[in-house]
Amino acid sequence: MLHILFLFPFLFSSSHASVQDFCVASLTMPDTPAGFPCKSPKLVTVDDFVFSGLGMAGNTTNIIKAAVTPAFVGQFPGLNGLGFSAARLDLAPAGVVPMHTHPGASELLFVVRGKILAGFISSANDVYVKSLKRGDIMVFPQGLLHFQVNAGGSTAIAVVSFSSANPGLQILDFALFANNLPSPLVEKTTFLDDAQVKKLKAVLGGTG
Amino acid sequence: MLHILFLFPFLFSSSHASVQDFCVASLTMPDTPAGFPCKSPKLVTVDDFVFSGLGMAGNTTNIIKAAVTPAFVGQFPGLNGLGFSAARLDLAPAGVVPMHTHPGASELLFVVRGKILAGFISSANDVYVKSLKRGDIMVFPQGLLHFQVNAGGSTAIAVVSFSSANPGLQILDFALFANNLPSPLVEKTTFLDDAQVKKLKAVLGGTG
Amino acid sequence: MLHILFLFPFLFSSSHASVQDFCVASLTMPDTPAGFPCKSPKLVTVDDFVFSGLGMAGNTTNIIKAAVTPAFVGQFPGLNGLGFSAARLDLAPAGVVPMHTHPGASELLFVVRGKILAGFISSANDVYVKSLKRGDIMVFPQGLLHFQVNAGGSTAIAVVSFSSANPGLQILDFALFANNLPSPLVEKTTFLDDAQVKKLKAVLGGTG
Amino acid sequence: MLHILFLFPFLFSSSHASVQDFCVASLTMPDTPAGFPCKSPKLVTVDDFVFSGLGMAGNTTNIIKAAVTPAFVGQFPGLNGLGFSAARLDLAPAGVVPMHTHPGASELLFVVRGKILAGFISSANDVYVKSLKRGDIMVFPQGLLHFQVNAGGSTAIAVVSFSSANPGLQILDFALFANNLPSPLVEKTTFLDDAQVKKLKAVLGGTG
Amino acid sequence: MLHILFLFPFLFSSSHASVQDFCVASLTMPDTPAGFPCKSPKLVTVDDFVFSGLGMAGNTTNIIKAAVTPAFVGQFPGLNGLGFSAARLDLAPAGVVPMHTHPGASELLFVVRGKILAGFISSANDVYVKSLKRGDIMVFPQGLLHFQVNAGGSTAIAVVSFSSANPGLQILDFALFANNLPSPLVEKTTFLDDAQVKKLKAVLGGTG
Amino acid sequence: MLHILFLFPFLFSSSHASVQDFCVASLTMPDTPAGFPCKSPKLVTVDDFVFSGLGMAGNTTNIIKAAVTPAFVGQFPGLNGLGFSAARLDLAPAGVVPMHTHPGASELLFVVRGKILAGFISSANDVYVKSLKRGDIMVFPQGLLHFQVNAGGSTAIAVVSFSSANPGLQILDFALFANNLPSPLVEKTTFLDDAQVKKLKAVLGGTG
Repeated sequence: MLHILFLFPFLFSSSHASVQDFCVASLTMPDTPAGFPCKSPKLVTVDDFVFSGLGMAGNTTNIIKAAVTPAFVGQFPGLNGLGFSAARLDLAPAGVVPMHTHPGASELLFVVRGKILAGFISSANDVYVKSLKRGDIMVFPQGLLHFQVNAGGSTAIAVVSFSSANPGLQILDFALFANNLPSPLVEKTTFLDDAQVKKLKAVLGGTG
Repeated sequence: MLHILFLFPFLFSSSHASVQDFCVASLTMPDTPAGFPCKSPKLVTVDDFVFSGLGMAGNTTNIIKAAVTPAFVGQFPGLNGLGFSAARLDLAPAGVVPMHTHPGASELLFVVRGKILAGFISSANDVYVKSLKRGDIMVFPQGLLHFQVNAGGSTAIAVVSFSSANPGLQILDFALFANNLPSPLVEKTTFLDDAQVKKLKAVLGGTG
Repeated sequence: MLHILFLFPFLFSSSHASVQDFCVASLTMPDTPAGFPCKSPKLVTVDDFVFSGLGMAGNTTNIIKAAVTPAFVGQFPGLNGLGFSAARLDLAPAGVVPMHTHPGASELLFVVRGKILAGFISSANDVYVKSLKRGDIMVFPQGLLHFQVNAGGSTAIAVVSFSSANPGLQILDFALFANNLPSPLVEKTTFLDDAQVKKLKAVLGGTG
Repeated sequence: MLHILFLFPFLFSSSHASVQDFCVASLTMPDTPAGFPCKSPKLVTVDDFVFSGLGMAGNTTNIIKAAVTPAFVGQFPGLNGLGFSAARLDLAPAGVVPMHTHPGASELLFVVRGKILAGFISSANDVYVKSLKRGDIMVFPQGLLHFQVNAGGSTAIAVVSFSSANPGLQILDFALFANNLPSPLVEKTTFLDDAQVKKLKAVLGGTG
Repeated sequence: MLHILFLFPFLFSSSHASVQDFCVASLTMPDTPAGFPCKSPKLVTVDDFVFSGLGMAGNTTNIIKAAVTPAFVGQFPGLNGLGFSAARLDLAPAGVVPMHTHPGASELLFVVRGKILAGFISSANDVYVKSLKRGDIMVFPQGLLHFQVNAGGSTAIAVVSFSSANPGLQILDFALFANNLPSPLVEKTTFLDDAQVKKLKAVLGGTG
Repeated sequence: MLHILFLFPFLFSSSHASVQDFCVASLTMPDTPAGFPCKSPKLVTVDDFVFSGLGMAGNTTNIIKAAVTPAFVGQFPGLNGLGFSAARLDLAPAGVVPMHTHPGASELLFVVRGKILAGFISSANDVYVKSLKRGDIMVFPQGLLHFQVNAGGSTAIAVVSFSSANPGLQILDFALFANNLPSPLVEKTTFLDDAQVKKLKAVLGGTG
């Protein structure tokens, strides 16, 4: 019997000192700026690296006729510390993913089915809009306002990836109209009319 | 005479191979993802590390009664590669810095004079608003919508710093109403009324 | 006419000093450790952010019955500096993406069609293998040996993303048998038999 | 009532799995190389993002006639993970911030009041010194020896920011003369005379 | 007595809020993507920054006539968060460090004694091989297959450093033949013959 | 003949679009914050990854009886972008590497021969000193003042690595006494006596 296995004893040391190929999130521990603490390597299985939640269509029976199903570190702990994540986008006919940003990540969208009109606006205030067909990919640089709209007559599906395991998502209408930010402040900082602000606050459940 | 100077000959090698304490931006060369190429160390002087543009009040005789004077890498090349920058904020009475984001940077605001009501909204849609007085500092995490409003009867001044040498700035109203993003798309992705969109496009010079 | 546009004059300064939301690669200039220098913002259009090359099936009429179509920064310059990229994987029945690594990136695979048996081996020498169906995603942590095999009777398609704009790809068989690394060195460093090495060198065009 | 709120259920999942816009430091937990673990988002309030400690002048009735008041992560937990921090500098007439470095951060100084003579020395041993007036900003690249001296007849005040939430501060005289580093070692590694070393050790409380 | 010590009170605040010059690993706590939590600064001594394990020759009485002795964060907690580590390499005559990768780190090898033939293969499938003598250093870029072979008649010794505190190590033969990866999968993904795979699995203790 | 080579056509595309395993420095082009632009991959040879300059002893016939021979990116272009570098240290009997810092890098010292007394001082003003023997390694965290002294009767040799390809080096005595920083400023910011400053300025060639 050969002794090659004894060459690198550090490979077989106690779990806390083993080399770090990956760091599956232990979601019940407090997060850190670099991600969640690692689950013990001894408890890690292949299922920590596989996620099946994107296989089913999201429910698009809502006013925007759209659904986003995330596979971020909170849903898919194997992504912890690896710097990227994914999501599934379902857009029924006339569906729309409203204007939004991802505060800490760029987005890459791949059209699996249908047609999608997508766009973003830069800091220099330039507009980049394009109608995408199946197989097209489009990138939305970090932190910029962007949107996706179904541009065909049938349901569109896209797979998106993000340059962060925990990209965040700030939907403009939610931020302005679906919380307790007082209407006078919304109006003063957006130049929107009082009636417009109150109308959308009523629709989206905002107060103040 | 002693020979200590000859100990570390690499300190005196040609400029391109010298150690890199700093990398003053050569703004006429193409930018890179990590910042501008470096000006030759031989041409660098102390004035590359000093910027006097924040000493004068910005012009607040405009509809928002506010002015932002940046000291980003484009204005202050000595910041190149160092990962932070600054700006001066002047808010006349009733002045407002409208809802905006910095796509790639957090912001830290220091109130030099007056009172400022400031706030931001998180991805979880929570609102964080506070009235700040002279000497207070407030931090706005990366990429989130935020605003500042003069909360007193006199001009307010703040110095802000950013966690990037080139933080970017996306003003919500500009992004929606001051470019050629077609009104139907604005409406579909923001739920704003057509009249509201057209009114603000007219004010801000947007087309489409 | 309102003067809000004059508030932030730095937004309209010369191109080299503008804020950096993105940095579309200028591929004809020399690369840097952080990516390619930026194309002039004035020349950037929406087409720099869209790539259509993944829409068509790759040619799988080869011995491995597989094709990988990349959308790395070299093919898709809009990804430059954004820290991620994508590729399309076509696996005909019995197709295989042989054992390989991406030296500087993790990989996230989304199964668009068919069934794929995929796996990786960790530094601790543990094996993580799983049979994936349509809609499943699996992550392969950075730098580890991994593979994908068609596990069904029909063509399988996957979209993969990488945590780098330029992830690299080292195919084990290519590295060992398709270059001029001398056979004795291959044998000494892999413990493979001379006949095996020479057989595969003959197949793959290696010399030495 | 509309159902838009149900679109993105991950926004409302349990706290440990929520998206990470920020990570307010839980200072009672052990630090990590990337910063402190995060306080539970449920317990975060706007006061975590505001710090009032820089509003009052530091006490300059000491031999250097100067005071530095920090707003680092230890004082201002909202900065955790955001990559920058701040401090206030008060310099009475003839006051001086002695030669020092920040081991892991660059510094950006904004003169709020008075005149300050500031400077740093590079690895190439070049000296960059400048007299700064109100409104001027100066940058001190990471890790280099630098100093600030009151250059006017009245108290000077500056606000400084750092490119780290926890920048560190190594004051040269403290490092050499205010601890138990043995005098012979100080002398051997600095070429200072024994009398000089002992004199300053006596002043600053050093031993050995 | 002077009061200079009272200038910077934050230097003497409670341990959790002190500045972070270093973060000695607390190996019994769960790892994070950025490294281990820090040992309390109060318990840190100089011995946390010194490691003596590389002073003795590794045991080369094995089939590869080689030994690698690591000084990674698991063995040397003072490296935590500092981004590099080291190891000692002993190569008896005819010794070999077989083909391997470090998934998350580049390697820099310094020949202390003897002659070593070393090489790596790039993603572009180019081979870089060189015979190194005492005093030579060679760099192996991150994640690429590489090897070292004793090229002289006497024992060779090298000191290597890595660009990570926890670089990982994937030995090709271990990954293919020393675990439970089924032989048919090994063969399908490497094109190796069944006899070859089974022969090496028998030698290295692999199953399946 | 097999067609496997045609599977991954991007591996053989023009140089600017090839994957980036490495980026050998083109030292004649301007540096960037992330390192030098890359030499064309077509011109890269194994000699770009090997450096022989550390094989010979440095000249220690000087007042400090020491020599540092660097292998930074300026001397060894293959290190560009890889985040580490090396140097050789020769200490004749009674030799000393005077108090210094590396502004942007931690240091790891390996004693090849002899005995070395080494130490550093932290921001918290704690002293960490240790006498090192052959085979010992010691780490000096980033940016902190540290020194090395020959602690035996014969020449000592060490190999050091740094956590940066271009670590910088600021020698305290050079910074204070070997340039044109005016003596009054040195005295005011260090509390050193005028006679001491002028004595060392005379020795080290400083002016002012």
